[in-house]
Amino acid sequence: MDQLNRRKERQGDRALLDQILDEAKVATVTTVVDGLPWSVPMLFARHGDEILLHGSTGAGALRHIAAGAPVALSAFIADGLVVADTLFDHSMNYRSAVVRGVVEKSSLDPAQALTALSDSILPGRSAEVPPHTSKQLAATLVLSLPITDGQWITKARKGGPGDDDAAGWTGEVPMRVVYGEPVTHTAGDVPESVRRLG
Amino acid sequence: MDQLNRRKERQGDRALLDQILDEAKVATVTTVVDGLPWSVPMLFARHGDEILLHGSTGAGALRHIAAGAPVALSAFIADGLVVADTLFDHSMNYRSAVVRGVVEKSSLDPAQALTALSDSILPGRSAEVPPHTSKQLAATLVLSLPITDGQWITKARKGGPGDDDAAGWTGEVPMRVVYGEPVTHTAGDVPESVRRLG
Repeated sequence: MDQLNRRKERQGDRALLDQILDEAKVATVTTVVDGLPWSVPMLFARHGDEILLHGSTGAGALRHIAAGAPVALSAFIADGLVVADTLFDHSMNYRSAVVRGVVEKSSLDPAQALTALSDSILPGRSAEVPPHTSKQLAATLVLSLPITDGQWITKARKGGPGDDDAAGWTGEVPMRVVYGEPVTHTAGDVPESVRRLG
Repeated sequence: MDQLNRRKERQGDRALLDQILDEAKVATVTTVVDGLPWSVPMLFARHGDEILLHGSTGAGALRHIAAGAPVALSAFIADGLVVADTLFDHSMNYRSAVVRGVVEKSSLDPAQALTALSDSILPGRSAEVPPHTSKQLAATLVLSLPITDGQWITKARKGGPGDDDAAGWTGEVPMRVVYGEPVTHTAGDVPESVRRLG
């Protein structure tokens, strides 16, 4: 099985970094707590050269990160299975990024940052709902991880297996995320932002 | 925007842990290198109470892990978008797991471990191709992270937004990964394992 960490095609490509960060809605945020690795999945959004993370003012490990603990943010998008004629050469096509740094104050105010985060989950939704209340903003901690030269890496694999002398069928099977039929919780017109997902 | 790290429904549910580890093909593996967080996406497979990771005998950070550095393995499955009537309450339905520990020798021999890893990527594929060669096995480092009581956590969110007094439509939009039409690299009969994915 070909492993994911061997091929570093297009390493250092900022356009690829932005593409990955804009497509992935969730990243694994990692830090060190008491000398041990600590990680949590978090919703995030890229805004220019910063990565916005949404925390709670009540969450301990996020306060640790907010206080300056080094962070590694890891985003991964699976693009397909790579099917070879030996098990060893099976692999996955993917795009991934790791961004390292220390969080700082965002260039956005909390309302702008929350709006950017919401629109990352569901594009266009911010135009359909009322603005944030002061109570909501007070309960929110927006962390901003800067994208700094030399502090990020992208990796990607695409295409079929390398072996051109395969004994039988080899190829790729594309993978993608699709949205299903919306499930109504409170009735009303399904918003345009949701209809666009289909 | 409701954040992912607030709700810990069903925390401690081993059946949920196994479900997440069996469904996710890739996890983010984290360790501490020179005091800093370090993470990489890796293909993995669960075999009973161990998590098999496939490394290369030439990869430095994996040797660090193999030498006993503490690891946190994080797996995440996105199940849907949660659409509320305020931006603040938008969220994602998901299942996630973090398993902590130190890797050890697998109970499987390298050939069995590689087979389990390959079948995790593409179920049933191992029955369709020749066995591993000794050269392939020599180039492979199989790491095994034990699933130990008290060293793992699951989190999950499901259902619609909490607010029952919503002013307009609210609900959920299911998300799932689908496989596309196989792309042929070398011609032949598309194997049964690939046809089953569709």
